[in-house]
Amino acid sequence: MFDDATIVAIATANGIGSISIVRISGVNALEIAKKISKKNTFQPRLATLSYIYDENNETIDEAIVLYFKAPFSFTGEDVVEFQCHGGVAIANIIVDEVLKYGARLANPGEFSKRAFFNNKIDLTKAEAISKIIEARSADAVKLLARQLKGELTNFVNEIREDLLFMLAYTEVSIDYAEEDLPSDIFDQIENKIQKIILKLSNTLEASRRREGMIEGFKVAIIGKPNVGKSSLLNKLLNYDRAIISDIAGTTRDTIEESVRIGTHIIKIVDTAGIRTASDIIEKIGIEKSIQTINEADIVIALFDNSKICDDEDKKILELINENLNKEIIKVLNKSDLENKFDKSNLMDFIELSTKEDINPLIKKVENFLDSNTHSDEMTLISKRQVTSVEDTLYNINLAKEPLVSGELEFFAHFITEALGNISSITRPYENDEMLDVMFGEFCLGK
Amino acid sequence: MFDDATIVAIATANGIGSISIVRISGVNALEIAKKISKKNTFQPRLATLSYIYDENNETIDEAIVLYFKAPFSFTGEDVVEFQCHGGVAIANIIVDEVLKYGARLANPGEFSKRAFFNNKIDLTKAEAISKIIEARSADAVKLLARQLKGELTNFVNEIREDLLFMLAYTEVSIDYAEEDLPSDIFDQIENKIQKIILKLSNTLEASRRREGMIEGFKVAIIGKPNVGKSSLLNKLLNYDRAIISDIAGTTRDTIEESVRIGTHIIKIVDTAGIRTASDIIEKIGIEKSIQTINEADIVIALFDNSKICDDEDKKILELINENLNKEIIKVLNKSDLENKFDKSNLMDFIELSTKEDINPLIKKVENFLDSNTHSDEMTLISKRQVTSVEDTLYNINLAKEPLVSGELEFFAHFITEALGNISSITRPYENDEMLDVMFGEFCLGK
Repeated sequence: MFDDATIVAIATANGIGSISIVRISGVNALEIAKKISKKNTFQPRLATLSYIYDENNETIDEAIVLYFKAPFSFTGEDVVEFQCHGGVAIANIIVDEVLKYGARLANPGEFSKRAFFNNKIDLTKAEAISKIIEARSADAVKLLARQLKGELTNFVNEIREDLLFMLAYTEVSIDYAEEDLPSDIFDQIENKIQKIILKLSNTLEASRRREGMIEGFKVAIIGKPNVGKSSLLNKLLNYDRAIISDIAGTTRDTIEESVRIGTHIIKIVDTAGIRTASDIIEKIGIEKSIQTINEADIVIALFDNSKICDDEDKKILELINENLNKEIIKVLNKSDLENKFDKSNLMDFIELSTKEDINPLIKKVENFLDSNTHSDEMTLISKRQVTSVEDTLYNINLAKEPLVSGELEFFAHFITEALGNISSITRPYENDEMLDVMFGEFCLGK
Repeated sequence: MFDDATIVAIATANGIGSISIVRISGVNALEIAKKISKKNTFQPRLATLSYIYDENNETIDEAIVLYFKAPFSFTGEDVVEFQCHGGVAIANIIVDEVLKYGARLANPGEFSKRAFFNNKIDLTKAEAISKIIEARSADAVKLLARQLKGELTNFVNEIREDLLFMLAYTEVSIDYAEEDLPSDIFDQIENKIQKIILKLSNTLEASRRREGMIEGFKVAIIGKPNVGKSSLLNKLLNYDRAIISDIAGTTRDTIEESVRIGTHIIKIVDTAGIRTASDIIEKIGIEKSIQTINEADIVIALFDNSKICDDEDKKILELINENLNKEIIKVLNKSDLENKFDKSNLMDFIELSTKEDINPLIKKVENFLDSNTHSDEMTLISKRQVTSVEDTLYNINLAKEPLVSGELEFFAHFITEALGNISSITRPYENDEMLDVMFGEFCLGK
């Protein structure tokens, strides 16, 4: 699955910090550590302060050396970590020295990949590790930490056991006479199938709803021209901006569109659209608005208190009524100007003045996100996991009919397919390419 | 000297990486570690894998916990390190949890400051740590690592002992009759003084010459208008640019003017001047050129092969002859164009064509820097150290006269002053403000 080279990489972020970590994994890790530290031995797991030398015996740094003896390490191989001084030069110099002793640079995700092949982690844990590094909110971290602890693995194993149970009984009843089986066995199986379908559907539904916990929740602003969309956008983008802006390693685009609200991250959908064409309904048309609403987790619909409720406003109100399952926050804007808008059109709404801050709106958004995320539902954290669960559900649904009609070979076929689908979440047995793609997306050093 | 609060900070650089470290120091470090990991105990120095919990018992992450029991830690206090997953969120969340248990955020340099006051490091080591984090070349790192190992501390101690020896004998000879002392004692002292003066002068001289090892060597380009200065500048700036540009935490200005050549960093002096006013000699005048030459470690003087050697060129050649102690590289540019320049004016020089690369020049610069830096001379690494050595030298020089004239009280006075000067390099006893300034320049978490 991979070569047996000893690999090395800097495990900490690139930049100014007081400590950096250089990590080596593989059969020669300990030997290399001894050479560059001139120490005779390292006791496993015991932090040892040591000078680090280059090949000419010049001192490079003083570092804490940690040796993890195989298989008791992250990768399952011999691993040595050097906690050296931080900054941009030292860690790179130590890596260069390690390379001279025959190690090679690790590929992105290669430490995790080795951990996977050495059965130290399954794919759900690998994905949680990869995502947790990119997480930007406490909620996201806690969600991912649950998967790190094996929640999804347990979920998958339970369903696998149920499917294997069905399969076993089905195969028996194909091969043997019916009288050898419990009389209610097919009721039991049908019952189990219904339960699995419910479990999988709920998980998919919860995962879709909570998708924003990792990537950021999508918020759309709609309303007729000059209602104050771009002004609200700017107020939102400047809210708590300091916290978001100092995150290194995120792209400029992301910075410009993400805001932290409470423990959540929100992303404003179609920022460019709001800024340039000041009108969604008129210029881009009603279809665009429908699409915007569909894509968003939360929609902020703006109405102008200083103008009468016209046809354009009514179109938006219609749209809102057609999307009652969506979280739509109605905002009566410019509440400090003379009232001309008939408020009876709105039912419940928030008022925002042109002068004051947008705290009432922020609070409303935060409350909704709190209620949407603070529960114990199992959540899938990647497209890959979602697809596998969807495939599982698809095949289990297909299995229902042959079960009723007694075509057990077909039933067994679909259940076997479903078994493959669900198993692939934790440990796919025949898809190297997928693994390459997946681990290739990890950051370097992981 | 500092409050007894338990302090916490992220010790690794901010950004995307696979591991981050959160470090706690102080009397409550172990107690806090137990609380957020729900472990009963940690064996000193032994790496322990543990989940980290928030106050609501929700899992935040899985981390390696390292406990260093006082005084066997970096700060000399109880220290706990959490090696958690990297990225921007987790480490901050763990810090937040630690704060809830009564720790406070560390000030910049506060870990090092505590290490200093607990006698774990002296100021030379503290400065080496601070500088090594910002170092950008292997040479700089190795130079600083020598100070980290105590080279300057030993140097200071040797001089202190010599000065104390002199002082002791002087005090004795003031208080007692001369016959109780060795007959040649003043010869011995004079001898020692000459040796110390030589040692200090050499160190100052070497430090000035090698200043560029830490900050980057200054390179100036001079020559008459249209000789190709800005074209050469661009070629230099693009040389090995990839390596410099990916250094996070450096300012854009620094990036734009720094280039790595071999193991060295060079900075182009007066980049703006070269780019805008294409002429140094003519527009800014000869004084400016003299200043440019004085500031630089290396001067590249350009001459145009396709033009005759005119008055302006001759002015530059005069300048070169007046600065024979400076490394000046004469370059005959545009060597592929028709020769009109009388080469006999130049003596040794490099030819660069308009088409080919600048490797011959790079090689020449690299060779000079190699010979200038690859020696074992002791090097001072900060303005503070240089000033202290200068002050020491100043007072020792003042002590020479009263020694000869037998005014021993004056001699003792100046030697005592010198003793204070040299001691302040490692451990100043009465200058809190200086310490605050010094440690305040450290990066956060150090």
